[in-house]
Amino acid sequence: MRTLKLTLAYDGTNYVGWQRQANGTAIQQVVEDAFLPLVGDDCAPGVAGAGRTDAGVHALGQVASVNIDVDYAPSVVQRALNIRLPPDIRVVTTEEAPLGFHARFHAQAKSYRYRLARAPVLLPFERSFVWHVPGLRDVDAMRQALAPLVGRRDFASFQSGGSATRDTVRTIERLEIRDDGDEVTLDIDGDGFLRHMVRIIVGTLVEVGCGLRAAGTVAAIVEARDRRAAGPTAPPCGLTLMAVRY
Amino acid sequence: MRTLKLTLAYDGTNYVGWQRQANGTAIQQVVEDAFLPLVGDDCAPGVAGAGRTDAGVHALGQVASVNIDVDYAPSVVQRALNIRLPPDIRVVTTEEAPLGFHARFHAQAKSYRYRLARAPVLLPFERSFVWHVPGLRDVDAMRQALAPLVGRRDFASFQSGGSATRDTVRTIERLEIRDDGDEVTLDIDGDGFLRHMVRIIVGTLVEVGCGLRAAGTVAAIVEARDRRAAGPTAPPCGLTLMAVRY
Repeated sequence: MRTLKLTLAYDGTNYVGWQRQANGTAIQQVVEDAFLPLVGDDCAPGVAGAGRTDAGVHALGQVASVNIDVDYAPSVVQRALNIRLPPDIRVVTTEEAPLGFHARFHAQAKSYRYRLARAPVLLPFERSFVWHVPGLRDVDAMRQALAPLVGRRDFASFQSGGSATRDTVRTIERLEIRDDGDEVTLDIDGDGFLRHMVRIIVGTLVEVGCGLRAAGTVAAIVEARDRRAAGPTAPPCGLTLMAVRY
Repeated sequence: MRTLKLTLAYDGTNYVGWQRQANGTAIQQVVEDAFLPLVGDDCAPGVAGAGRTDAGVHALGQVASVNIDVDYAPSVVQRALNIRLPPDIRVVTTEEAPLGFHARFHAQAKSYRYRLARAPVLLPFERSFVWHVPGLRDVDAMRQALAPLVGRRDFASFQSGGSATRDTVRTIERLEIRDDGDEVTLDIDGDGFLRHMVRIIVGTLVEVGCGLRAAGTVAAIVEARDRRAAGPTAPPCGLTLMAVRY
């Protein structure tokens, strides 16, 4: 038995997310099935992903671990998987990992990027990878709203209503906004993220950028520890899991 | 009656091309249907496009003309169309044109871009907009092959087999290759293009870049005036109509 570490890129548009759901095809399942010809068995090996990206969320640096019992070199495994996988899911790197390496349990931090487009007309090439917010005008106000969100905080206000997670304290290591004119990009690194946390942070900051909420109110939203205090959940299409740190 | 000039951007992946075909949905038809609520009539106005982009070919600057009998400002027409159009087709600009302006008959030149990706693994975000040619190594050789293709030439060797066009003389004004490492871009401007002409030129140049054909053979291909002398037709997904000049 050996453990492989895979880095995956995918366009999440046509999937119910990384993790298996009753209502459609999960990326995890497609990746597991792609191992079938390699393991020469009817039973696909379990593939563990670092982050459970939601339906419609993308990845350029999702990490997955798998334990398999075949001798092929990592590059051969990767080619075999990419032949079998649909073009919207790609294995970008494949490497040997210490036996028992687990992509989720051993992850120390994750980096996400959220892309906002603010041209009056959204170009078709971009439509699956950005949130179109033509009313987004005040990026400086968004920057002024970041400080209360960075560091070790209780992010209960930024967790989706139905979530059962009790310990809502997480550390955001970095939260930066880049303004490229027609595109505004948010980069967020942290040791862990609650369900919809990045998207609720983005939805709240976009309200600030559109003049619907004052930058100074964000500290009070964190204090409230109540989902109803924060802004809407930004759509999944703008979000990409960029990297996982171990 | 007045004439409007529209600039259109579209992702051609899910269409049979600009022009109506028996076997699927054409972009022209979708744009014409989008006028129905505006004209308040059961009969959509005819929309003429500058170029008949093939199935799977994209546009950032397709130009279309339409004669309509309604008084709305161009910006109102554009918003109404974009509300009705699917997100893979967008009207980017709308302006008044001289009565009788015709996007195809009055076009003087067109600019196309062809994108080649040569990283070992093609990222999913790019998959509908590039041709993945991981074996493309020698961009300098491709550049050396350009000279016989620029200027006023008989491009009979670069016209698809089934085409009925007799006059195969066209002028390529500009043909440039940019090498950005993982992506190689060809920009081609000309007064008109035969059926599949850009894609056959690209297919031929890619053979040169992959070491399958010597750069010095391209002059003889032009001389041959025979489709069989040239390389394969590059796939449509890498091609984008960038602009039309009037």
